[in-house]
Amino acid sequence: MPVSNTLIADLTWYDFAEKVKANPIVFLPIGSVEQHGPHLPLSTDILLPQAIAAEVAERVGGLVAPPVAYGYKSQPKSGGGNHFPGTLSLDAGVLIGLVRNVVNELVRHGVRRIVLFDGHMENQWFLVEAADLALRDQAMLGRSDVKIIKLGYWEFITKTTEKVLFPDGFPSWELEHAAVMETSVMLHIRPDLVRSELIPDGPAADFPPYDIYPFDTRPIPPTGVLSSAGSASAEKGAAVLAQVVPDIADALIKAFDAPTA
Amino acid sequence: MPVSNTLIADLTWYDFAEKVKANPIVFLPIGSVEQHGPHLPLSTDILLPQAIAAEVAERVGGLVAPPVAYGYKSQPKSGGGNHFPGTLSLDAGVLIGLVRNVVNELVRHGVRRIVLFDGHMENQWFLVEAADLALRDQAMLGRSDVKIIKLGYWEFITKTTEKVLFPDGFPSWELEHAAVMETSVMLHIRPDLVRSELIPDGPAADFPPYDIYPFDTRPIPPTGVLSSAGSASAEKGAAVLAQVVPDIADALIKAFDAPTA
Amino acid sequence: MPVSNTLIADLTWYDFAEKVKANPIVFLPIGSVEQHGPHLPLSTDILLPQAIAAEVAERVGGLVAPPVAYGYKSQPKSGGGNHFPGTLSLDAGVLIGLVRNVVNELVRHGVRRIVLFDGHMENQWFLVEAADLALRDQAMLGRSDVKIIKLGYWEFITKTTEKVLFPDGFPSWELEHAAVMETSVMLHIRPDLVRSELIPDGPAADFPPYDIYPFDTRPIPPTGVLSSAGSASAEKGAAVLAQVVPDIADALIKAFDAPTA
Amino acid sequence: MPVSNTLIADLTWYDFAEKVKANPIVFLPIGSVEQHGPHLPLSTDILLPQAIAAEVAERVGGLVAPPVAYGYKSQPKSGGGNHFPGTLSLDAGVLIGLVRNVVNELVRHGVRRIVLFDGHMENQWFLVEAADLALRDQAMLGRSDVKIIKLGYWEFITKTTEKVLFPDGFPSWELEHAAVMETSVMLHIRPDLVRSELIPDGPAADFPPYDIYPFDTRPIPPTGVLSSAGSASAEKGAAVLAQVVPDIADALIKAFDAPTA
Amino acid sequence: MPVSNTLIADLTWYDFAEKVKANPIVFLPIGSVEQHGPHLPLSTDILLPQAIAAEVAERVGGLVAPPVAYGYKSQPKSGGGNHFPGTLSLDAGVLIGLVRNVVNELVRHGVRRIVLFDGHMENQWFLVEAADLALRDQAMLGRSDVKIIKLGYWEFITKTTEKVLFPDGFPSWELEHAAVMETSVMLHIRPDLVRSELIPDGPAADFPPYDIYPFDTRPIPPTGVLSSAGSASAEKGAAVLAQVVPDIADALIKAFDAPTA
Amino acid sequence: MPVSNTLIADLTWYDFAEKVKANPIVFLPIGSVEQHGPHLPLSTDILLPQAIAAEVAERVGGLVAPPVAYGYKSQPKSGGGNHFPGTLSLDAGVLIGLVRNVVNELVRHGVRRIVLFDGHMENQWFLVEAADLALRDQAMLGRSDVKIIKLGYWEFITKTTEKVLFPDGFPSWELEHAAVMETSVMLHIRPDLVRSELIPDGPAADFPPYDIYPFDTRPIPPTGVLSSAGSASAEKGAAVLAQVVPDIADALIKAFDAPTA
Repeated sequence: MPVSNTLIADLTWYDFAEKVKANPIVFLPIGSVEQHGPHLPLSTDILLPQAIAAEVAERVGGLVAPPVAYGYKSQPKSGGGNHFPGTLSLDAGVLIGLVRNVVNELVRHGVRRIVLFDGHMENQWFLVEAADLALRDQAMLGRSDVKIIKLGYWEFITKTTEKVLFPDGFPSWELEHAAVMETSVMLHIRPDLVRSELIPDGPAADFPPYDIYPFDTRPIPPTGVLSSAGSASAEKGAAVLAQVVPDIADALIKAFDAPTA
Repeated sequence: MPVSNTLIADLTWYDFAEKVKANPIVFLPIGSVEQHGPHLPLSTDILLPQAIAAEVAERVGGLVAPPVAYGYKSQPKSGGGNHFPGTLSLDAGVLIGLVRNVVNELVRHGVRRIVLFDGHMENQWFLVEAADLALRDQAMLGRSDVKIIKLGYWEFITKTTEKVLFPDGFPSWELEHAAVMETSVMLHIRPDLVRSELIPDGPAADFPPYDIYPFDTRPIPPTGVLSSAGSASAEKGAAVLAQVVPDIADALIKAFDAPTA
Repeated sequence: MPVSNTLIADLTWYDFAEKVKANPIVFLPIGSVEQHGPHLPLSTDILLPQAIAAEVAERVGGLVAPPVAYGYKSQPKSGGGNHFPGTLSLDAGVLIGLVRNVVNELVRHGVRRIVLFDGHMENQWFLVEAADLALRDQAMLGRSDVKIIKLGYWEFITKTTEKVLFPDGFPSWELEHAAVMETSVMLHIRPDLVRSELIPDGPAADFPPYDIYPFDTRPIPPTGVLSSAGSASAEKGAAVLAQVVPDIADALIKAFDAPTA
Repeated sequence: MPVSNTLIADLTWYDFAEKVKANPIVFLPIGSVEQHGPHLPLSTDILLPQAIAAEVAERVGGLVAPPVAYGYKSQPKSGGGNHFPGTLSLDAGVLIGLVRNVVNELVRHGVRRIVLFDGHMENQWFLVEAADLALRDQAMLGRSDVKIIKLGYWEFITKTTEKVLFPDGFPSWELEHAAVMETSVMLHIRPDLVRSELIPDGPAADFPPYDIYPFDTRPIPPTGVLSSAGSASAEKGAAVLAQVVPDIADALIKAFDAPTA
Repeated sequence: MPVSNTLIADLTWYDFAEKVKANPIVFLPIGSVEQHGPHLPLSTDILLPQAIAAEVAERVGGLVAPPVAYGYKSQPKSGGGNHFPGTLSLDAGVLIGLVRNVVNELVRHGVRRIVLFDGHMENQWFLVEAADLALRDQAMLGRSDVKIIKLGYWEFITKTTEKVLFPDGFPSWELEHAAVMETSVMLHIRPDLVRSELIPDGPAADFPPYDIYPFDTRPIPPTGVLSSAGSASAEKGAAVLAQVVPDIADALIKAFDAPTA
Repeated sequence: MPVSNTLIADLTWYDFAEKVKANPIVFLPIGSVEQHGPHLPLSTDILLPQAIAAEVAERVGGLVAPPVAYGYKSQPKSGGGNHFPGTLSLDAGVLIGLVRNVVNELVRHGVRRIVLFDGHMENQWFLVEAADLALRDQAMLGRSDVKIIKLGYWEFITKTTEKVLFPDGFPSWELEHAAVMETSVMLHIRPDLVRSELIPDGPAADFPPYDIYPFDTRPIPPTGVLSSAGSASAEKGAAVLAQVVPDIADALIKAFDAPTA
């Protein structure tokens, strides 16, 4: 296996120093350790953005930083809930601080274009805060030339790809937890980690229009899968990647040239 | 004007002590000071939940706590963005701490059923964290009988009401910033604060599937209104309240009896 | 009712942007949710500074920001104590962070003259810290032209007005909790919220020269009123406002021109 | 010099363990490093409470913990201001955390009666918060038998002693910074540290009824002494101690037996 | 490749729930992203503890949690220094909070025996604090049956193995940065990531007995390697693992049965 | 006793202002309140660095700031452990914040050369963080001319002095807790605080190569002394000071002229 050219983890500091000179886009994959039903591993939310970010990085000559493996607390409507065994989550303050620190460190070493590459829906607002605070830190240090993009790869899935994934109609990205899309991409990139024989089939979960703490577990499917993964396939997973990887790459290249507020 | 029976602000401590004995649902309205276009005041996001919470409280024999007037940083896709003049926002840690404090204080005085009644989309995940941390605090104090519900009133608007509001098709709740729904309810409850002659009309904003910091202001409508408010009316506002108030009241009564995880 | 010209809450962002150009003094009223005896509402400490700040703002062409409704923990000697029902208080760190955030946000939008307008004695040292930390934040951002004034409106009451309020002798501002001054001003500005028939009369509280935690409740009057409010009247309240409003206005205009350390 | 029986610093852990069995009152002196004019050392505010606490401890069979030498930021009206050279102050959060930690540690080793013995007026509200948070920590650990008293020794000075100190009339405790009382007690307990020949004489400072940040240095006497120390004497200092030491001792013994809220 | 039985990342939540019933020892590898000379990757400090922990876990029927990939700031004397390109480090508060969170989450799901498995010398004291605070959190939740062990695998290397590694004499573990031991183990477990042709040879660094900030870079070898790695070999690496893996396994089994303070 | 010329505590602000003009090295002694066996006082770890720092300051024309008397949590292997009675320790965050505050305050008043003079092994990494964060604060304020040195005086003891102290062989600095070196220096500088008749003699403690929380108390000597103090003498203490004082003075003078990273 050749040493990766895009993973910071695999580089020496000499390699890193050399590469940073070219002002690369640096990707920080951020995931979670979260239940993903009987068929997907607890690391699903970090494996997916790591894999996709690596492919995008390859295209744009970017680098992928070591991942933030732990994420924010799983919620019933988007992840089944934090009470499922093995779901190991961070407090908001810790997640914000961790991402803020890593961003500031990248900037300290010369990086100016950073992508917070999210694999876990519950992380998103805390990434917004981490980006905002890191930019404030940089402003206090007199630096105003840093740009940070935050994205969830699933938001780039087009209507066309949606139809490939869900020929019978799309539920919602929130209910897509451990369901067709995630299972398909895992079957494509890490089939060894999918227990295909345990892929559950069942109706989509139905939640009330509020959130209650402690959770009301009654509307949560006992498997933790929020809508059926029955129609998942490696082919569908390949189709997702074939579309989102170039689309994200294109979008980022344009975005980093955009004027700022 | 008779002294309100539901606003904690208007009660004496004797009144409060008496009312808490009945185990009331207590509502904490949480808003923002955020641009709402040329026609709505900066306080729109707190006026709406205050008004609606008061009506719901009336129905369920509940109480409304003094509002949290400041909220999380406005984002382009849901609020136009924090750079608009007059938008005064809190850091995540402050907002979380503030709501956590108020919840813990209510519990200290005997309240066991609390609703975080949100009027500002950007607040929502920080309210989740506040609820989680307050319940942890209570667990550390040996108390496990507290329930907290977090809701955005707009999530209770039914398809039927959506059709009243948007006979020509519904954009999305995120783009509904300072648009038909908010303007209509403001025309119903506080017409004195609406500059009707300045209600903007124009196409809905179109954002890329990522977020960039500092903001790219190009896709943000210069008015700060994310989709047309042209068809807003006090009648539509009345229709929203006529539907969501009883629906929220009913949902809460059921929800507070639900079993917990 | 015409839309206020001084309340930021009532302005649109266009209004705000326009007004900030004139370098207005911006007032942030800071209060508490605190017991005020059997006759005054829990919101007394925020209603008073809001009302007075609005009148001062009118005189100086200033603006009033949405209030900080919650304040620091009530103490026996100045507020009866945090254990009274309905007293909802913040931890020091949250109050400091909240005021610091709001000050920084005002500055971000161009405000350079800010008044922390306190209505609750227990807040004062935390406002000092908020002001100090906000100025440090601004220094880190390279900005040194901001001035912050912290005041309690009661500190502007002259000996002459004291004699109007207390013809038989003045106890002390600390014991003036829910007593003659506060009751009188409330009778003047919000008589609808005063239960006149419940105004207590009784000797002033007598405390030892130390503070004990948890509280010793024996020296605390059971009503929570620290000295008699029996002689309160709307006329006295009007006299207070007639004196302090112009005096505060004059003092602020002079103070914001003072040289700095 | 015999090893002190009251200073925890001088005890071995065997001594400490033995003494804690008797449930002693433990004193934590809290001061500041703050300008005290041309004649008193920067450590005045910690030397005084250490000395007085030691005498009180002797009387009540108590112990004195190592002092908290640094305190909150000096203010013009009570200490001349933080800008005076050599004034080394803590942020509120650090001071609160430090005192909270020490209190919790004392409790961990079996202490149940603690006195926060303040020598610096600016510290007081942060000591309130430290006490409150430490009691909350203890409640979370299931412990409810701890009592904390916070006091400033000067608050125990009686009218009679005031007349000894100020035969010509008493200004106010706030203006008593580096003035008659502090200078007198220093002349009594540490005459070696007083530059008697430099004791300033001059009119008391006159401040407006608000605080401004950054400071307006005009009303601050250039020496940092807020009212004349001209009439200070070791005899006056001895008189202060002769009165406050037994009075504080008596008050504490009674106070620690008081019922709690 | 069969799915791992010890990596939590690879398990489903059903697997995790099942395994936790046996009260397994759970290992949390904690590393850094730190320069390791011209020949080793930036991830060396996490690859080593992950690999070793996995082998130990295999022996004791334990589980390995997803790693904490980022660690504390590299110091000249033990890691060359934080200024080397690619060295991405966390503030103390973030690292402490992160490890404390993960420990608490493991405990929440039933884990009672946790090993903080450190691969980066600079982390150690912050792991002590994380362990202490997590145990305090658990005590506040009423739980006292958790044990946490913190270790650096290198501390288990015996004198015998030291002689295998350093036949000509052992410098010190601190100077063993990117040198013989680390290079040898990397050559054993991940030879694909070692640039053998770039292994530097040179005298050990010589530091003064103090630390200076900002760093004095003169005593730091420009390669970042603190002593010669010239004699490293895969065989030496295999010898290290052959010794430390069983020794750590044995020690842990005994340690988790030890009585507690 | 003449007023000290090096102790900031003893200076007036006029003195301080005058001395700072010469750009003095300022020493901040940092210790602990920690068990030191049956023969040494709980304040040993602050008395030693205070005394030594004062002598070094004398030589280099420096100043000694008031000490940080409380330190980080005692550990079995270096201090016996935090469970010993009278050991009063700080959380990491508080210690870091305290030292960071004091450093920043010294810099605010013009100090540019600061020594964190440690007397307690457990403090060291938190001092690293305090130094790093203070320099970051200064960078945010636009200041880059500050240097901070962190040292433990024992690290300057030469091999020659080691032989004077331990003619029969040196155990390790970690086991030197309350043993020959510390006892000897205390006998030299504060014999009044040493209970010579209680100096324990016994074998050095033997610890496993890991740390366990809560502590396993079995390997901890019940006296808290980690290796024999039997051969301690005032002469040895004098020898230590005679060597380290000039060596530290020389090293500091050179170090503060070193170039920076």
